[in-house]
Amino acid sequence: MDVKEEALKISKEKGGKIEVNSKVSIETMEDLAIAYTPGVAAVSSAIAENIEDVYTYTSKKNLVAVITDGSAVLGLGNIGPEAAIPVMEGKAALFKRFANVDAVPISLDTQDTEEIISHVQAIAPSFGGINLEDISAPRCFEIERRLKESLNIPVFHDDQHGTAIVVLAAIYNALKLTEKNIEDVRIVVNGGGAAGIAISKRLLSAGVTDVLLVDKTGILSSNDANLEDRHKEIAEVTNKTNIHGDLHKALKGADIFVGVSAPNVLKKEWIADMNDKPVIFAMANPEPEINPQDAKDGGAFIVGTGRSDYPNQINNVLAFPGIFRGALDARATDITDDMQIAAAQGIASVIPDDELTVENILPNVFTEGVSDIVANSVKNAK
Amino acid sequence: MDVKEEALKISKEKGGKIEVNSKVSIETMEDLAIAYTPGVAAVSSAIAENIEDVYTYTSKKNLVAVITDGSAVLGLGNIGPEAAIPVMEGKAALFKRFANVDAVPISLDTQDTEEIISHVQAIAPSFGGINLEDISAPRCFEIERRLKESLNIPVFHDDQHGTAIVVLAAIYNALKLTEKNIEDVRIVVNGGGAAGIAISKRLLSAGVTDVLLVDKTGILSSNDANLEDRHKEIAEVTNKTNIHGDLHKALKGADIFVGVSAPNVLKKEWIADMNDKPVIFAMANPEPEINPQDAKDGGAFIVGTGRSDYPNQINNVLAFPGIFRGALDARATDITDDMQIAAAQGIASVIPDDELTVENILPNVFTEGVSDIVANSVKNAK
Repeated sequence: MDVKEEALKISKEKGGKIEVNSKVSIETMEDLAIAYTPGVAAVSSAIAENIEDVYTYTSKKNLVAVITDGSAVLGLGNIGPEAAIPVMEGKAALFKRFANVDAVPISLDTQDTEEIISHVQAIAPSFGGINLEDISAPRCFEIERRLKESLNIPVFHDDQHGTAIVVLAAIYNALKLTEKNIEDVRIVVNGGGAAGIAISKRLLSAGVTDVLLVDKTGILSSNDANLEDRHKEIAEVTNKTNIHGDLHKALKGADIFVGVSAPNVLKKEWIADMNDKPVIFAMANPEPEINPQDAKDGGAFIVGTGRSDYPNQINNVLAFPGIFRGALDARATDITDDMQIAAAQGIASVIPDDELTVENILPNVFTEGVSDIVANSVKNAK
Repeated sequence: MDVKEEALKISKEKGGKIEVNSKVSIETMEDLAIAYTPGVAAVSSAIAENIEDVYTYTSKKNLVAVITDGSAVLGLGNIGPEAAIPVMEGKAALFKRFANVDAVPISLDTQDTEEIISHVQAIAPSFGGINLEDISAPRCFEIERRLKESLNIPVFHDDQHGTAIVVLAAIYNALKLTEKNIEDVRIVVNGGGAAGIAISKRLLSAGVTDVLLVDKTGILSSNDANLEDRHKEIAEVTNKTNIHGDLHKALKGADIFVGVSAPNVLKKEWIADMNDKPVIFAMANPEPEINPQDAKDGGAFIVGTGRSDYPNQINNVLAFPGIFRGALDARATDITDDMQIAAAQGIASVIPDDELTVENILPNVFTEGVSDIVANSVKNAK
């Protein structure tokens, strides 16, 4: 079966992937009087008197808006709001399947930062959380920051933080197997986009002290006058000794490679120049930065990719459903750094130490209970 | 059972009245690859190539946004966006129950006309239709007009048009029983709010030639210099002979009274001054303009109210689900006057002539097939 053909077929047959259902039965005039007028007036009045009751009596407490402007959809780029809908629907379907979160796909007909912020603020009363999706950098940073500041419900840009959290979970378990401490390792993040920046920040907030962020121009360094705005801030907290050079240079003596870049940019020979027990997470999609077998042949101790057909899949489906489940259940007003680190610890904890092997550092997305464990970790970190 | 207590109890137990479900099964890695990446890329690409395919492959074709700003909620007034959510959820539940329409409640955190228009335009790509709800006059007129002009999906303010359509349906069947022609009758509409204005316009577009619209100040007349802006336009097309006076004066010789005003404003004695076989639709909620038994005692031939505990309930649940079902199925870009009149004819047609009595001029909302008949009427009028 060709998954693309099948995706077209199913989407057409079903008319999209999500539906909105009533949780109340409406079969008699009395049912109608309870679900709608006059009964509903009592529910509205209760909330008018105490606005916090909106969490008691409405779907807000379990409803997340999955919001995009269609500017950076998968590998397809800026395809616009309508063409982004299937991805948002897929995300909504995953929210339901993995964490019983009710998610509504909302594709916005603008790519203006201020307008997007204004629209999301306007629709926020109905929702218990906002999942930003497939919004291009650098606008995604400003949009997320401003919404986090202004809204009293959790706002989360999954493309940035979801992957970063699962990478951190993979690193936690890789460190156990390599018997290294998080504060002692050098991690090279390859890819200067939103994901690479978010991963670098997450690693630093989790206690990694030596991160090098590398993009097409080489290792980012704060004494490079030509840096883009979005790279300046991150260059100041990574690469503390201002190393200059290319990816190969960055890898010399490094412990872990994290790739969110492009196919086949990591040469097998370079792995020999890394520290002992090198760890390679090559997540470019669909072709990783290095073929996993080549990485192993080059001396990699642990290899992970974004793909399900190799061991150690780094899949953000492990993170976002449970993160929102936990944030909604805790009625959190934000998804903080601590909550995100706790989510990574929760994912890592799903594999018991005696089952941890170089080919089994992360649970499969269908492993029973992952999102519950993540949700509890997030709740406890609130 | 107290419906208000029951409404609070059920809303709390269920956590609101709606949920979002996945229509696709996600139990294997292959399912995941079809519902999300990489399969979904094929669906997005198809839409990027031909934007009309958004109706083939996504939930847009069956998804309606139920949008409010919380400014005119039921009889509760301006209670704000959060307190309005239970009503929007109820509406969404009715959309599903009566016409299998997927409806999403969206409460906006603004009551500024321009902002509301902008937000609705922005979220429109995800939706196949927009149902405006409980937005106060006169802003509702401008908001609906501008959205109808600017969007290529149907926009419908149910508070105005839903009731107007069911009133027209009731009048169609009342005219059969009174053996009068629509162009010969005088209809007095009491209530100068959004519903009264919308009903007056609907009656005129359906062929009624003599409408008097009455508010607290008396019969609206275009030669009254003190008219509010929103009443000027309607005064010019009603009351063609510029009658001045109160409701009692208006009723002299009138055939039909339509009340969307306040309890007990219609005196029993006045009915004797109406034309033969007077028809009284007293829809003030929860107490009608006249008690139905009093109206009968006063000589009314047919009496209808907004209540389910009297005969001839004029309930907009008869209209809006089927109207959107028809508009979505026809992929209409608007819900035109003709489509609304067709909906009224459809509702009226549910009662066969041989079952038509003064106590049975409208179907019950649970009568099988009402929304299908309305939907087909609307589709055929597109």
